[in-house]
Amino acid sequence: MRVRVSPSAQNMTPRSIHDLSTPAIVIDSDALDRNIATMSSLRPGAKLRPHVKATKCTALAIRQVAFGHNNFTCATVREMIGMADAGIGADLLLANESIDADRLAALAKTQDKTMITVAIDSDETLRAAARAGIRNVLIDVNVGLPRCGCAPEVAGALADAARQAGLNVRGVMGYEGHLMMVATRDERQAKVAESMALLIRAAQNVGGEIISAGGTGTFDMHESTGVTEVQAGSYSLMDTQYAQLGLPFEQAAWVLGTVVSSNAKWSVIDVGLKALGMDHGNPSVEAHRVWFCSDEHTTMATTSGAQLHVGTRVRVAPSHIDPTIAMHNTAWVVRGEEVIDSWEIDLRGW
Amino acid sequence: MRVRVSPSAQNMTPRSIHDLSTPAIVIDSDALDRNIATMSSLRPGAKLRPHVKATKCTALAIRQVAFGHNNFTCATVREMIGMADAGIGADLLLANESIDADRLAALAKTQDKTMITVAIDSDETLRAAARAGIRNVLIDVNVGLPRCGCAPEVAGALADAARQAGLNVRGVMGYEGHLMMVATRDERQAKVAESMALLIRAAQNVGGEIISAGGTGTFDMHESTGVTEVQAGSYSLMDTQYAQLGLPFEQAAWVLGTVVSSNAKWSVIDVGLKALGMDHGNPSVEAHRVWFCSDEHTTMATTSGAQLHVGTRVRVAPSHIDPTIAMHNTAWVVRGEEVIDSWEIDLRGW
Repeated sequence: MRVRVSPSAQNMTPRSIHDLSTPAIVIDSDALDRNIATMSSLRPGAKLRPHVKATKCTALAIRQVAFGHNNFTCATVREMIGMADAGIGADLLLANESIDADRLAALAKTQDKTMITVAIDSDETLRAAARAGIRNVLIDVNVGLPRCGCAPEVAGALADAARQAGLNVRGVMGYEGHLMMVATRDERQAKVAESMALLIRAAQNVGGEIISAGGTGTFDMHESTGVTEVQAGSYSLMDTQYAQLGLPFEQAAWVLGTVVSSNAKWSVIDVGLKALGMDHGNPSVEAHRVWFCSDEHTTMATTSGAQLHVGTRVRVAPSHIDPTIAMHNTAWVVRGEEVIDSWEIDLRGW
Repeated sequence: MRVRVSPSAQNMTPRSIHDLSTPAIVIDSDALDRNIATMSSLRPGAKLRPHVKATKCTALAIRQVAFGHNNFTCATVREMIGMADAGIGADLLLANESIDADRLAALAKTQDKTMITVAIDSDETLRAAARAGIRNVLIDVNVGLPRCGCAPEVAGALADAARQAGLNVRGVMGYEGHLMMVATRDERQAKVAESMALLIRAAQNVGGEIISAGGTGTFDMHESTGVTEVQAGSYSLMDTQYAQLGLPFEQAAWVLGTVVSSNAKWSVIDVGLKALGMDHGNPSVEAHRVWFCSDEHTTMATTSGAQLHVGTRVRVAPSHIDPTIAMHNTAWVVRGEEVIDSWEIDLRGW
């Protein structure tokens, strides 16, 4: 058993979740592997470009490589450089815009280690990439989500300008993030098809071989959209919001907490909103009703009415896994109550 | 000009906010000093026990010491040990329950450097403190917020048990967190008085000299409650939620962002929900309407209808400062657009 020890636990080698200082991220090793295996059976190899932003962990990415994925998506330059420095992934995409000259220059230096591609959606982002010595770009196309991406009708002109600036244009990307939580599957599928029609028309004007889109909520809706690769990330660990969609993935990560105060009406655990992404609302605890979260606490009650003992360990399922993971230094890999490994969340920050 | 350089900016010495990589916390040095001065004029010296959880930064705590405060409140053992190791504060209170034997033992080791006091609210937390060699405790009393704290009527018995276990009982604390955002001042004041009556009765049964309570929303409502010290923290940097109360403190911290994508209808900045505490809702940007936040972006529009240029720097006011600060490594101290110092957010984690 190899256990790297977290800064908060330098004098212990945890063998059980009962030895962990809390709050602490725990990942069910077998559930993680089942999620990765399910996804890789449906979108094998290069048909999936796993999104690193959801997990920020090179050790977890190595598991995805083991299941056949060699191309990765990142949201920050820090994630890109961290993956390149760790030697993970043959082909890394920054699916985000940056005009930060220092960061892009640092990223350009990793191009001898792996293939680096950067999204651009404007003259400014084009010039920033070219000035930094970035070699490969994708044209980011707006497909309905009011965020980054150029209008579909100008994608071809931006690609031409990029080529004139000496950049290799590998294709397009367009993220239909506004459709991830459309409640019914039929409606979601129909809207994805409409959205991707915009991307395909842009791709025809841009050229290149890549048409990159999608996420965990739409990962299996791209069989006939023309999209060549899906950028899903949250599928590997999951959260309670994506669980609402009935996807073939199971919860594989929790924030482990300890009951620190308890009475007949409620219990308080040491997992608060500094240990949980809160943008999707409160977390969930099996067999409990969550009342509210404060900085370092969640107040909750058992559905049975039973009182919890101080010291009881509780698994808290986050409503949004991506920002939750980003709040922790370490993930503890478990099988049941046994701690079998620890992984550094090494791609945090920007 | 002394500038410590953040891990993400190792090759630059920023002299202006335009040199900072974003997202980045910026603190207005003069506004911070005005907030601290205002508070220390109203609750001087030991009448305030500034709460470290809101700022997690020893460099900022040194400013509070300069204005006469030597006693501090913490929410985590990490904050306590970090303050003790930095030699800041003569008297540190862990206003939170812990049964973590390793952490409490590490905390007990700092007792030769400074006075350490730990809140207890149960036999379990009493025993954990005693076993770890903690010398001083406060009895945490529930005053209406459904979170930690023993029932007022058992506080005296818990204090007796603590003294029998060899602990020095310094008094009581009770946090009226459920009253911070009561909208009208008169109603807030009346409810605080009711809540504190519970605490004072418990204090009479507990003994000791400390009656600790309060927060930024109720800091000036304890003149006649009998409370000896107020635990406010957010007042020094402020956030848009506390700004609703019309307190005599101004916004002193923002997350600086850069426009990375822009069109006639909206702009996108590189400050997303991984750089912002989201439990109080969306952040605010002066002269803009914020549409939504995603992992690494906020989409917004100018109220004037003008289009922003890619590269424009924008100050984002967080809705909740405490979890926002906890997401960043570094705070850049500014005067106008000049960067005059950088402070490590060195008390993150647990």
